[in-house]
Order: sequence, then structure tokens, then C-alpha cells
Amino acid sequence: MKKKTLLTPGPTPVPERALTRMAMPAMHHRHSEFKKVLGEVREGLKYIFQTKGEVIIFASSGTGAMEAAVTNTLCKGDQVLVVRSGKFGERWADICKAYGVNADGIEVKWGSAVKVSEVAAKLKAKAYKALLIQATETSTAVQHPVKEIAELTKGTETLLIVDGVTGVGVFPLPFDEWGIDLLVTGSQKALMLPPGLAFAALSEKAWKACEKSDLPKYYFNFRKELKNLGNNETAYTPAVSLIVGLHEVIKMYKEETLEKVFAENARMAEATREALKAMGLKLFAPESPSDACTAAWTPETVDGAEVVKRIRDVYGYAIAGGQDQVKGKIIRIAHMGYIARYDIIAGIAALEQTLTDLGYKFELGSGVRRAEQVFGG
Amino acid sequence: MKKKTLLTPGPTPVPERALTRMAMPAMHHRHSEFKKVLGEVREGLKYIFQTKGEVIIFASSGTGAMEAAVTNTLCKGDQVLVVRSGKFGERWADICKAYGVNADGIEVKWGSAVKVSEVAAKLKAKAYKALLIQATETSTAVQHPVKEIAELTKGTETLLIVDGVTGVGVFPLPFDEWGIDLLVTGSQKALMLPPGLAFAALSEKAWKACEKSDLPKYYFNFRKELKNLGNNETAYTPAVSLIVGLHEVIKMYKEETLEKVFAENARMAEATREALKAMGLKLFAPESPSDACTAAWTPETVDGAEVVKRIRDVYGYAIAGGQDQVKGKIIRIAHMGYIARYDIIAGIAALEQTLTDLGYKFELGSGVRRAEQVFGG
Repeated sequence: MKKKTLLTPGPTPVPERALTRMAMPAMHHRHSEFKKVLGEVREGLKYIFQTKGEVIIFASSGTGAMEAAVTNTLCKGDQVLVVRSGKFGERWADICKAYGVNADGIEVKWGSAVKVSEVAAKLKAKAYKALLIQATETSTAVQHPVKEIAELTKGTETLLIVDGVTGVGVFPLPFDEWGIDLLVTGSQKALMLPPGLAFAALSEKAWKACEKSDLPKYYFNFRKELKNLGNNETAYTPAVSLIVGLHEVIKMYKEETLEKVFAENARMAEATREALKAMGLKLFAPESPSDACTAAWTPETVDGAEVVKRIRDVYGYAIAGGQDQVKGKIIRIAHMGYIARYDIIAGIAALEQTLTDLGYKFELGSGVRRAEQVFGG
Repeated sequence: MKKKTLLTPGPTPVPERALTRMAMPAMHHRHSEFKKVLGEVREGLKYIFQTKGEVIIFASSGTGAMEAAVTNTLCKGDQVLVVRSGKFGERWADICKAYGVNADGIEVKWGSAVKVSEVAAKLKAKAYKALLIQATETSTAVQHPVKEIAELTKGTETLLIVDGVTGVGVFPLPFDEWGIDLLVTGSQKALMLPPGLAFAALSEKAWKACEKSDLPKYYFNFRKELKNLGNNETAYTPAVSLIVGLHEVIKMYKEETLEKVFAENARMAEATREALKAMGLKLFAPESPSDACTAAWTPETVDGAEVVKRIRDVYGYAIAGGQDQVKGKIIRIAHMGYIARYDIIAGIAALEQTLTDLGYKFELGSGVRRAEQVFGG
């Protein structure tokens, strides 16, 4: 009977409005009733991606759209540059490897953002077909300087391919304005839906690269989907219930406006950071924290895995631990999508109780008080 | 306010039990609560596929699992044999082409099943790495003789790869017993769920072929998924809500038993065929009809597209028309998944009214009466 709240950086809680819509009887994906929904979803995705161009929709996890970004724009033997700053940077490198694309890496210490000057130097030293990066490296809660990097690639031959799975709908990534070439996301983060949908926006430069790409592909085919979307269809059976849920989520975004969503996420991110610091915790990515999620080192005397387990099992709040090289060493708390400031305050309270239980000494209530101050109460 | 009923061969209606489960708050895919569900789903899929082996799960439409069947078991330049008897046979050929696999075709007239003797002759004439076929060619409502074909490939070097999207859970395709090598399906047909999940069962021979396959792949990777499933996880974020719905659907299958589901589908198929014949319609696939759906020529004086439109818009029953070369010429009615015999009777009544409206002359009520006779009332 214990109430459970997700504060994990994906999946995030699904709004009741979307759950209810998705529980409606099935629609046929070739009937006008669904086509109308898909037509409105297409427009809504343009709003969320801040682009005039079409946003491609796949029935898959976000990784499917990442693979599509590689296989649809690149050629065998192409030289690309990958920012490797965590688990998801490694995924870009792995996908390139699987398809015979040569990926040079910019190695970045976990918890840091890539330096724009280093990217500039690398792009100057060698002609790269594409630069692949994350908007947020979810495994470290670092936000990379996408805007500044886009200024380097804009007007050049290099495609800027951004994994925005933990970014689109969280903080500004204005696709057209910044000149990003390819931006992908999934349904289970800022879009507040269950996982199962992936999205990709493409620039004119990216669409031109698609014409020349010689890598094999079938299910994940941007050009085929683009053609079908013009008729409010998808090339293969779409994930109808999730798209109906997305239709509702888009209404929520439009009612709230992107600007307000971004501002509130930034406020929640600041409150989370300040609260953790007030509790004496050290931020994992103090220099370039993401507005999507916050990571902090767990106190030296406390096992991070224990924190994650206890706050979930005893207090009902799901947060994330560390992955790979920081497993057991950090905790990550999300503040995006259908997570409100009072979820953050309650989650901080649950964390205070958990850390107290585990023997960490600090002033109980100090985190919550600091969060309230940031929220201006 | 008009009530709508789907009698389309995918998507099929979703049971209220599954809709309600899917409307529950989101679970995290790495937490024990979801892992328990996935563990039970793994066992349930073995029951439905009638196999002792693992059934792989992807977040994608059924086409994703078809692509995986090709890219995970074959090598560039392999010779394969494709049964081309409709739109989905063409899909096998297209996927092979996209990955540089050489596909010879057995051309079969639309509305007919492939002849076992012809398959035998082709397999004797040339060494094929795989034979690719549909259990039901959904576009023609033909059921192919998978059992007899499996007897040809069993114990040979040739893999039997079956698209069971319209077959698994509809009629017997006992994977282990028949010696099928690879069987795929999707969530939106007999499994009564929204689209967005794809599945594949593999024989030992198929798993061995996976070790040797040199085709590029990333998201659709059987071996990576097999490894993760052992820990009740998937390699990439799973479509959590659909898997929770599947958990409920598997309970329904177990409560009912596969045997009873198959028998009831066969009875509904027979009733549908007999009803259409009693109304004077000609079956499109009289020799080898599928237990999943039935196709009939529309009367010569009536436009098939008009029938599909009117029965849906005026009477609220969604049936399918013809695709590609039989567009506007046939109608298709599904009888699988969460479609009950009284849905069929009501659907036949709606069809009788529709055809009467469109000027076709026949004895009103003759189809429904015949269906009732088959059901034994």
C-alpha cells in the first residue's frame, strides 16, 4: 500500500491525463480518427523540437533513433568524432563500430562537460563527417555546451548529431535556431510517457546526407518515414497507444508553454543542487550540471547502492545510483517531465531520512529548507 | 457516441483487463517489481510459442523482429528462398535486399498457399541458407503449410524463418515440436495489445547461425537480448506499459489454455467463411484459409473500398479492404485475439446491412443464420 514516486532520470512519472487517454479502446492506425491524432502530434513535435521541419517517429526505445542517426546519414568508412564522457557517449561509439564508421573520441572525465576549445581544435585538425554528442550525459548528469558546439559545425561539412534523450523538452535546444543537424529523443523522459517511442529531427544538411548514405537499414529509415508522415501514416505499424498518450502530453506542453517548462525545470534543478549541498553532499558535476537530473557523491561513509535501495524500499522514492565506473558512488535525482517542485521537496526529505538512517551526520531538514528558499517560499 | 468494434487483422481489440493494467503508474524497468513481471512474461511467452527456449522481446513493430531474423542469422551474400505470396512475403524480400542477402523467390498467386512439392523441389535444386515464409500472409488471408515445410528443413542446413505476426497465438505453430528455426510475432494481433512489441523464438540451429552472422546490427541484436533476459532485463529500455499489458494477456491465455483459444479461433473462422458463402460471396482463399482472418471478393457490382468505408462509418465495424493488387476488390475480417463469436455474428449482420445498402441482392439474415448454425446454436 506504500505510495511510490519516480524521481529517476527515465522513466519519469506518466500524467494521469495521458494514462487515461492510453486506456481508451484501440484505434486502427490507418483510419481517419488516428490520422487526425498523428497530424496533430506531428505539429506538436515541431513545437517541442523548435523546428519547422518534420520530426520522425519510431516505435522503439531512444537507442533505435540513435542507430538511425548513424545508419541514415553516414557511409561506411566515414570519419566521425564522438564525445565520450559517460555511458551514452560510449553508445555512440558502439553504434559507429557496429556499422563500420570510424569514430575518434574526445575523452572527457566523468562528471565534466566537453571543452568547446577542445572540440574546435579537433574539428580543425581533421575533416569529420559528423560530431556525435549528448545534450545531457545521463550517466553523469552533465549538460554539454550544445549551443557553442553548434556554432562550430554550422555552415561546415560536419553534421552535429545530438542525443537529446535527456534534453529535448527539458531545457532549450532550439533545433533550427542553433543549427543542430540531427536531434533524437525518447518518450520516457521529458515527454512523460512510458518508453517505446523514439524521435528524430533533421536539418536540410542531414536530409542531404541521407541521400548519400550507403549503410544498410530497413526498419529505421528516415526517408521512408518522412514520405509516410506526409500522409499521416508511418511506414510500419506505429505504437498507437503511446502516440495517443503523446497527443495528450503535447496538449499539456502547449497549455504550459515550453518557456515555462524550461524555467521550472531550471528552478527545480537549482533547488536540488542547493539542497544537496546544504546537506553537506558534494555535487558530481558542479561545473556543468544538467537541468534534467542532478548527481551527487554519496558521503564517504555510506554505500550509494544502499541509499538507492533504502529510499525506495522504505520511503517509496525511486532515485538512480551510479553506472559503470561510479556504481555505488553517486546518486542521481531527476527533475523533468511530470515531476513537480513538491515532489523534489518530498524526495529531498526522504533522502534526508535515508542518510540519517545510514549514519550520516548532518542537520535534519537543512536540505528541504534550502530547497524551499530557492523556490522562494 | 457510436460504438466502434475492430474486426481488422491487426490491430485487434485490447481487453479491458489489459487496458486497466497499462493505465497503472509507471514502473522503473530496472526495479524488482518490473523484473518480476518480465520474468513471468518470459515464461508466458514460452507457453505461447510452445518452446523451451527463450523468446526475445523488442520495443518495435513486428517488422523489427523480421529485420532481426535476417540480420542476426545470415551473412552478406547468403542465398535464401522467399515465399512471395503477398505484401508480407515482399517484405521478407525487401529486408534481404537491404542487407545484401540474395533472395530467390517462389512466386505464388495471391490467394493461394505455396505448394509443399514446389518448396521441396527448390530446396533440392540449390543449397539455401534459409527459407523465409509467412504463417498467414495477412494481405491475402492465406495460411501456409508451415508444418509440412518444417519437415523439409528439419535436420538440414536450411533455417526455416517464419513470420508468425498473424499466426502465433491464433493457431498451432508448436515451435519445438515442428522444428521451426525462427518464429516472430507482434503484440497487436492474437496477443491483443496495442502495437509496439515484437518477439522472436530461435532454435539451437538459429542460435548457432547467430554466432556466424556478419551482417551489421545494433538495436535488434538477439544475442545481446538473450544475455540480458537471463537477468530479467532488456538491453535497451523496454516498452514497460506494453509488457505490463502482456503480463495480463498471458494470464488470460493460461486461464483459457492455448488449445481452447485455437479451437475457438478455428470455429470463428469457419463460421465467418460459411456466413460469407451463404450470402453469396466468393472466398478469396478457399483452398487454404487462415484461422486468423478471412478474405472474400466483394460482389462485382460493389466497390470493396465503399464496403469498408460504409460498414465503419455507418455501422461502427472496422474491417479491412484489399492491399496492392487486390485493393478495392476484397474485404478481410479478423477472428483472433479479443474477438468473440458474438462480435463475428454482429459484424456479419453489419456487413449484410452494408451490402444491402450498396444494392447487392441476397437474402438478408442468411449470413448470420449460417454463422449461428456453425456455432451450434
